[in-house]
Amino acid sequence: MHEDGLTEVKNPSQIFLSERNKDVTGAVVTASIEGSRPVLLEVQALVTPTNFGNPQRVTTGFDYRRLSILLAVLEKRAGMRLSSHNVFLNIAGGLKIDEPAIDLAVCAAVASSLKNQPAKNNYVVLGEVGLGGEIRSVGHIEKRIQEAEKLGFKNVIIPQNNVKSIKSKNSINLISVENIVEAIEKILG
Amino acid sequence: MHEDGLTEVKNPSQIFLSERNKDVTGAVVTASIEGSRPVLLEVQALVTPTNFGNPQRVTTGFDYRRLSILLAVLEKRAGMRLSSHNVFLNIAGGLKIDEPAIDLAVCAAVASSLKNQPAKNNYVVLGEVGLGGEIRSVGHIEKRIQEAEKLGFKNVIIPQNNVKSIKSKNSINLISVENIVEAIEKILG
Amino acid sequence: MHEDGLTEVKNPSQIFLSERNKDVTGAVVTASIEGSRPVLLEVQALVTPTNFGNPQRVTTGFDYRRLSILLAVLEKRAGMRLSSHNVFLNIAGGLKIDEPAIDLAVCAAVASSLKNQPAKNNYVVLGEVGLGGEIRSVGHIEKRIQEAEKLGFKNVIIPQNNVKSIKSKNSINLISVENIVEAIEKILG
Amino acid sequence: MHEDGLTEVKNPSQIFLSERNKDVTGAVVTASIEGSRPVLLEVQALVTPTNFGNPQRVTTGFDYRRLSILLAVLEKRAGMRLSSHNVFLNIAGGLKIDEPAIDLAVCAAVASSLKNQPAKNNYVVLGEVGLGGEIRSVGHIEKRIQEAEKLGFKNVIIPQNNVKSIKSKNSINLISVENIVEAIEKILG
Amino acid sequence: MHEDGLTEVKNPSQIFLSERNKDVTGAVVTASIEGSRPVLLEVQALVTPTNFGNPQRVTTGFDYRRLSILLAVLEKRAGMRLSSHNVFLNIAGGLKIDEPAIDLAVCAAVASSLKNQPAKNNYVVLGEVGLGGEIRSVGHIEKRIQEAEKLGFKNVIIPQNNVKSIKSKNSINLISVENIVEAIEKILG
Amino acid sequence: MHEDGLTEVKNPSQIFLSERNKDVTGAVVTASIEGSRPVLLEVQALVTPTNFGNPQRVTTGFDYRRLSILLAVLEKRAGMRLSSHNVFLNIAGGLKIDEPAIDLAVCAAVASSLKNQPAKNNYVVLGEVGLGGEIRSVGHIEKRIQEAEKLGFKNVIIPQNNVKSIKSKNSINLISVENIVEAIEKILG
Repeated sequence: MHEDGLTEVKNPSQIFLSERNKDVTGAVVTASIEGSRPVLLEVQALVTPTNFGNPQRVTTGFDYRRLSILLAVLEKRAGMRLSSHNVFLNIAGGLKIDEPAIDLAVCAAVASSLKNQPAKNNYVVLGEVGLGGEIRSVGHIEKRIQEAEKLGFKNVIIPQNNVKSIKSKNSINLISVENIVEAIEKILG
Repeated sequence: MHEDGLTEVKNPSQIFLSERNKDVTGAVVTASIEGSRPVLLEVQALVTPTNFGNPQRVTTGFDYRRLSILLAVLEKRAGMRLSSHNVFLNIAGGLKIDEPAIDLAVCAAVASSLKNQPAKNNYVVLGEVGLGGEIRSVGHIEKRIQEAEKLGFKNVIIPQNNVKSIKSKNSINLISVENIVEAIEKILG
Repeated sequence: MHEDGLTEVKNPSQIFLSERNKDVTGAVVTASIEGSRPVLLEVQALVTPTNFGNPQRVTTGFDYRRLSILLAVLEKRAGMRLSSHNVFLNIAGGLKIDEPAIDLAVCAAVASSLKNQPAKNNYVVLGEVGLGGEIRSVGHIEKRIQEAEKLGFKNVIIPQNNVKSIKSKNSINLISVENIVEAIEKILG
Repeated sequence: MHEDGLTEVKNPSQIFLSERNKDVTGAVVTASIEGSRPVLLEVQALVTPTNFGNPQRVTTGFDYRRLSILLAVLEKRAGMRLSSHNVFLNIAGGLKIDEPAIDLAVCAAVASSLKNQPAKNNYVVLGEVGLGGEIRSVGHIEKRIQEAEKLGFKNVIIPQNNVKSIKSKNSINLISVENIVEAIEKILG
Repeated sequence: MHEDGLTEVKNPSQIFLSERNKDVTGAVVTASIEGSRPVLLEVQALVTPTNFGNPQRVTTGFDYRRLSILLAVLEKRAGMRLSSHNVFLNIAGGLKIDEPAIDLAVCAAVASSLKNQPAKNNYVVLGEVGLGGEIRSVGHIEKRIQEAEKLGFKNVIIPQNNVKSIKSKNSINLISVENIVEAIEKILG
Repeated sequence: MHEDGLTEVKNPSQIFLSERNKDVTGAVVTASIEGSRPVLLEVQALVTPTNFGNPQRVTTGFDYRRLSILLAVLEKRAGMRLSSHNVFLNIAGGLKIDEPAIDLAVCAAVASSLKNQPAKNNYVVLGEVGLGGEIRSVGHIEKRIQEAEKLGFKNVIIPQNNVKSIKSKNSINLISVENIVEAIEKILG
């Protein structure tokens, strides 16, 4: 995490809530674990038609090859025509994330920009995406949910396989999903 | 291994059993050695026809060049037309594996996705693949078999050359294989 | 930061004020945090039409992939035809900067060179640029503003979301912006 | 060397003797020095016709550029048409070798796969290959020969220039070679 | 700096004075700071017409991307047709330099080879080049000038903005320049 | 330097004298400094016509970009048509050399293979090559000459600018050269 800015507020997740442009497409909030504490962050995608040659895939803060694989899953399992589009992916705030728990947020941000449909407000999105299109469980699920709740979010998309491992009682609304098609339908407005 | 999730359960191999989507193609379970302990993991492949230009090969958690060589073996020794297909390969859970003992699981996952046939349920697949298509022995064979047994798997595909080195008595069913064609026939349903 | 020259003057930001060629296009001043102290620096862009083949993107002192993403934002959100232009980007003085707070200065330098319009004199430009074209807040905003003021600048472009976090009273003129189109209009002369 | 398997047997070279599929093409045994002890290993090559575009060269466990140079030597000095073939090269067991002493084994494995002729049984192959096609001497020649003998091999191909440096009496048959054409004739069956 | 040769003479800058082939094109002397002491060095460029395909840019001892940017400046600000030429750049003696103070020497060496005009004898060239074509000041200017004087050079090209910072009295002739076009005219014979 | 072989003989340079195939083209002996002691080594080049597409340049043990620059010098200053040839370069024995003192040996080896003319016997070749085609002096010249003499060589090609720095009396024949064309004429038989 960069040393600037985030250290000025008590909770590093708080700062970006005010940044959220609620109607913009291609932006999805997720929760990652940095060290041992949860941090909310915004995944941003920009999808544009490819004019000529090979489609561009550019990413900052997220593994390039992981993005390529997630795009193949969206193409094959959710029928999105991404091979004729350029895809740009960014983690806002200059963060660098390397855990599969944000896979689903990446997929949803790409889908949101491609379809030109904003993601629903007040949603945090959690889940690893398998090559079969299945949503796989993520670790530290309760820490992530509690952080979302603390910052005022009303809904969390979680993997079906994580449901049993949640013991704490949350006032936030938990929406479980099993595969990529169902998940994107529930995330986009 | 990523620090998230897997540390929350007593046995790191247990978590993914519940994740297994039994009818999906392109997913094969194998056992790797991390440090000195065995860990079960799922290799996932997604094979799609190449529309134009060079076929894509993208891999996360597994060596890119090793995948290229295994695809050449599948093409030459098992007659699969992979040069006209894109191949995406992923180790589920964000693991990074660098040992040839999972070669056969990689090959079987690719074959499963290409042929659109799921791998058999309850199988763990072990074996290095040589360029002649022969299945070569793997180290720590007993540790791997015991882990598969402990997690409730019923069958393990093992290299023929490992048979003699197994001294312990296992209740799990051991199926030995000598070459890639025979192995894939026994793994796919 | 290179060990040469800048250490000879009392304030590392002072040296480049004299260098500023006030009518040249493609040059924009911003403030970055090096260690814990602010430093003013000049972002320089040179945009030329692409004669044949793929457009060139070359950058020294700034991440190549970040530039690619910012160019996509300028193309999509501000309607600039950058895919038919080569873009060269340089941080003057041999500095290497890796924080999103200079995003807006990079975008403005590119826009200035493309449109052949110099940036306004006496402006320092601050802001992260999101993929939706929104200008996001930056950390250490007051340190950066004070450095600009100390060196004699009259105006600072700041993100709208930073306005509330500024407690100190500054004689320098603060101009807040919310999106990339509005920001570039206010920066170019 | 990978930590798995090889540590379970007394002599690390022994394990692969049982793996040897004697009639397969493209496999040649050589001896390398790991730390200070000799280890026998199998070099495997797979050569296939190039269907379109540039020929592929993929290698695991051996330097990519060294392979390119050895292929040029085979083409120029031994008249093999490798520029119209894909070449895959692998060191069995996941070993990574970086010494020119296995050059001749690499060349012989490639020639064996290209010509579809297995290498002779019971041969261990030693020698650096120069760009003139000459076979150059290798260090630790006696250690390598003794390891081959201990594991039951009957013949060792050695560089002519190493003959004088061998003082010990070996029961294994030493076959000296001076250039690449002569060497490959003696190695292939 | 390489350990050979330069350590045999009292002053590392002296050795190359005798090497200077005074009529050759593409060679320009500059002064860099290594650690804390100045060292004179020769920048060499070789510019040849591009026969087919993309122009080659190859550099040893200097950053590849920095060269690309300087070539764009020469093309745009000084009207040189470099996109149809290959450019090879070398720092003589195997030195590796990473400071913008030698930018102008690099530009002058390229211009000298392109125009087939040798640089003037007895000149040392100092200056950072901005993307607007302006010559920017360099640090440690007095150390560099003194080294040039000590080794018998008669003229130093310096940035206009450095003039005020020079307090010492030098017998060497100081020629100040403000932009790339003017500078190259003064450097080439 | 690799740990094998060379440590078995008293003088590391001695071993390769016996390896020298005196009539082969593309092989030139030079002397490099490893740590503080001189070592003789053989540079090998293989130059073949390019059948289609871009010419290949592959190198082991020597910097790829340095080779590209030396090839440009040979093309421009000595009129050799290398852009229509593949060039493979190797330092025999697996050595890795990074000093410009072996430039001239590299150039001579390439020229020898291109022209199909062996280099003269009994010659050791020393010299850095500048982009103007001039032969520049090398450090530790006396150490290098003495090593060549000790191993029985009769002639050493040295840069003209090194002549004055040689104080010791050698029985070996010193042949000084000033530029690349003259040098290659004196080296090839």
